[in-house]
Amino acid sequence: MSKWRFQTPGIPDDLFIRGDLPMTKEEVRAVTISKLRLKRDSVVWDIGAGTGSLSIEAGLIADQGSVWAVERESEGIELINQNCEEFGVENIEPINGEAPAALADLPAADRIIIGGSGGQLEEILAMVDKKMTAEGRVVLNAITLETLLAAKESLSKMDYSFNIVTVSITRTREIGNYHMLDAQNPIYIIAGERRR
Amino acid sequence: MSKWRFQTPGIPDDLFIRGDLPMTKEEVRAVTISKLRLKRDSVVWDIGAGTGSLSIEAGLIADQGSVWAVERESEGIELINQNCEEFGVENIEPINGEAPAALADLPAADRIIIGGSGGQLEEILAMVDKKMTAEGRVVLNAITLETLLAAKESLSKMDYSFNIVTVSITRTREIGNYHMLDAQNPIYIIAGERRR
Amino acid sequence: MSKWRFQTPGIPDDLFIRGDLPMTKEEVRAVTISKLRLKRDSVVWDIGAGTGSLSIEAGLIADQGSVWAVERESEGIELINQNCEEFGVENIEPINGEAPAALADLPAADRIIIGGSGGQLEEILAMVDKKMTAEGRVVLNAITLETLLAAKESLSKMDYSFNIVTVSITRTREIGNYHMLDAQNPIYIIAGERRR
Amino acid sequence: MSKWRFQTPGIPDDLFIRGDLPMTKEEVRAVTISKLRLKRDSVVWDIGAGTGSLSIEAGLIADQGSVWAVERESEGIELINQNCEEFGVENIEPINGEAPAALADLPAADRIIIGGSGGQLEEILAMVDKKMTAEGRVVLNAITLETLLAAKESLSKMDYSFNIVTVSITRTREIGNYHMLDAQNPIYIIAGERRR
Repeated sequence: MSKWRFQTPGIPDDLFIRGDLPMTKEEVRAVTISKLRLKRDSVVWDIGAGTGSLSIEAGLIADQGSVWAVERESEGIELINQNCEEFGVENIEPINGEAPAALADLPAADRIIIGGSGGQLEEILAMVDKKMTAEGRVVLNAITLETLLAAKESLSKMDYSFNIVTVSITRTREIGNYHMLDAQNPIYIIAGERRR
Repeated sequence: MSKWRFQTPGIPDDLFIRGDLPMTKEEVRAVTISKLRLKRDSVVWDIGAGTGSLSIEAGLIADQGSVWAVERESEGIELINQNCEEFGVENIEPINGEAPAALADLPAADRIIIGGSGGQLEEILAMVDKKMTAEGRVVLNAITLETLLAAKESLSKMDYSFNIVTVSITRTREIGNYHMLDAQNPIYIIAGERRR
Repeated sequence: MSKWRFQTPGIPDDLFIRGDLPMTKEEVRAVTISKLRLKRDSVVWDIGAGTGSLSIEAGLIADQGSVWAVERESEGIELINQNCEEFGVENIEPINGEAPAALADLPAADRIIIGGSGGQLEEILAMVDKKMTAEGRVVLNAITLETLLAAKESLSKMDYSFNIVTVSITRTREIGNYHMLDAQNPIYIIAGERRR
Repeated sequence: MSKWRFQTPGIPDDLFIRGDLPMTKEEVRAVTISKLRLKRDSVVWDIGAGTGSLSIEAGLIADQGSVWAVERESEGIELINQNCEEFGVENIEPINGEAPAALADLPAADRIIIGGSGGQLEEILAMVDKKMTAEGRVVLNAITLETLLAAKESLSKMDYSFNIVTVSITRTREIGNYHMLDAQNPIYIIAGERRR
């Protein structure tokens, strides 16, 4: 039984083992997973998986499916393994490699997260288009203007329909009797699928 | 089988029947449901249920539990019924009445959403505290400063632990070849539980 | 003497005559004018001047300089004239024409606002670069992703130094005893100058 | 002649000497000063002046008036003095003391900034009401929910008319060829005046 006993995404940040890697914050994970529209038997690629926090969320919900967590940093792979153990999740396969090359041998996916692209977004999206199932969905998280731009241009060229939202979360931090505003960096979430 | 074939919250706004009532937007619903931490057998109160969009999300995920959708406007009750039918959801019970009075006879809940309080927030939270199960959670959505303030003060007096985030979503709207920024009103989401 | 008796920008929206044209909101005008860094004797181009609200702000502060308010819609030109009269501002020259063509005969400017570009941003920036004084500054307001990205690309190619901020203003609207959150659309403000 | 040769507020952050004190960011200063509606001969109180960045902005614009920069920390007073020298501003008087006590002997002001209140906001606003001129304006910057709510309640009781905006600025930070989103903490700006 998993450490996370709930059906809903948005696992609190501090339940993950993080090391020094940046991690997608819980509220942004909730929206990202929501845009992904998971099924219990989804096959998921999580490209640029980092600490694996999105993989864990996806693995718990797609409990009859599987998640391929692609990450080029070996530090990330270790954290993904640790988090899988921590959360008792067994349907996640960490892949230590660089996209798009590392994607070539993976099974076709119906749900694809792109959290990092190492400057290869166009090539990665071409591979996604080649291997994603007919009714598949791809969701990108962009924290730079350049990634936003590249995603928009590539998806337009591929004639995908897509939708872009910016998510800005402000937390409050208790300091004595005060709740201070504490902005999290905004993130662009782009969700695309083939035109039907 | 439901019209919504996915395991994840954040059902697109346009799948709901809305009438003229305001509706919690899909990204805000995703975060709200995430803060609620649903189980499959959760018993949920949705106070100020409006069109029932949060009730539907909760009912689909808590598929072995039940949702009590409390709404004082009969127009809302009708929309909730229509949306239940539309989505094929059968574990939602619409209650046409005003909180806190309308809550008195409901079964104890472990998950409580407060989307509207008709100026009775303190009294509603007192009732919540009386009838919520030991490990229950209450999540409030506030769109006014006054509701934020009242929630913060009441939860402090009740010695609940709570956490406040502001969620600001900007969508983009396609106009010709342009993606225009289109701000949604921010919302305060306050999630509380008893100190343990 | 002007209707606006203060030295500071950010004139309240409702003091302007607006017609049906969109208008840059007062808080965004305050930041835009701040990024422009006006002098009393600045010569300003306001390209895509709309209702003239930014021209009026600039004209009042650059009271020994002049403002060329370029707008292709004759409805805008009329509003600019009306607002000049309303505010008693006499150093603004409305130019009914389309940029960049309409800019060719204007005197060199040291401060340039681009509020609208009609899809000709690259060409307009080329003209700006040709006619802006050595220590000039150009400030763009973008409400679409495409304009943001075109500005970023053009300024990069021109080897300008530039800086981008997103300004998100949420107002509160009083409804009875409540202050409701009321989001204004975010705007990207890009301020550039030649590298020195 | 001042180091800042422009007529407009929003002096870049890095032109100030800051020490370890927090400082109001340039875009927020631009909006704050805009809400203040300065005249050249305004008498300004800057309560909780910190590094003096708002005092400097006000002193430059109200060049025939004066600014009383009230700050309880002696580190702040030193920074204010250094910044006055740095910017060549001579109409700012630093007052080392705690409001409201430190305000009792100041000359009446027509423009009042409250950037910090040390938990004494209600008492400070009572003093403001006593000593502010008939057409005066007071502008508060709040970074906590408690200050926002205290300001709202006190101004309501005092029957002032007031207006609240939240300003959220996201900067971009260049990292290699990327522009990363970099959120600044949002701030509530509350501008009030007596009902007329």
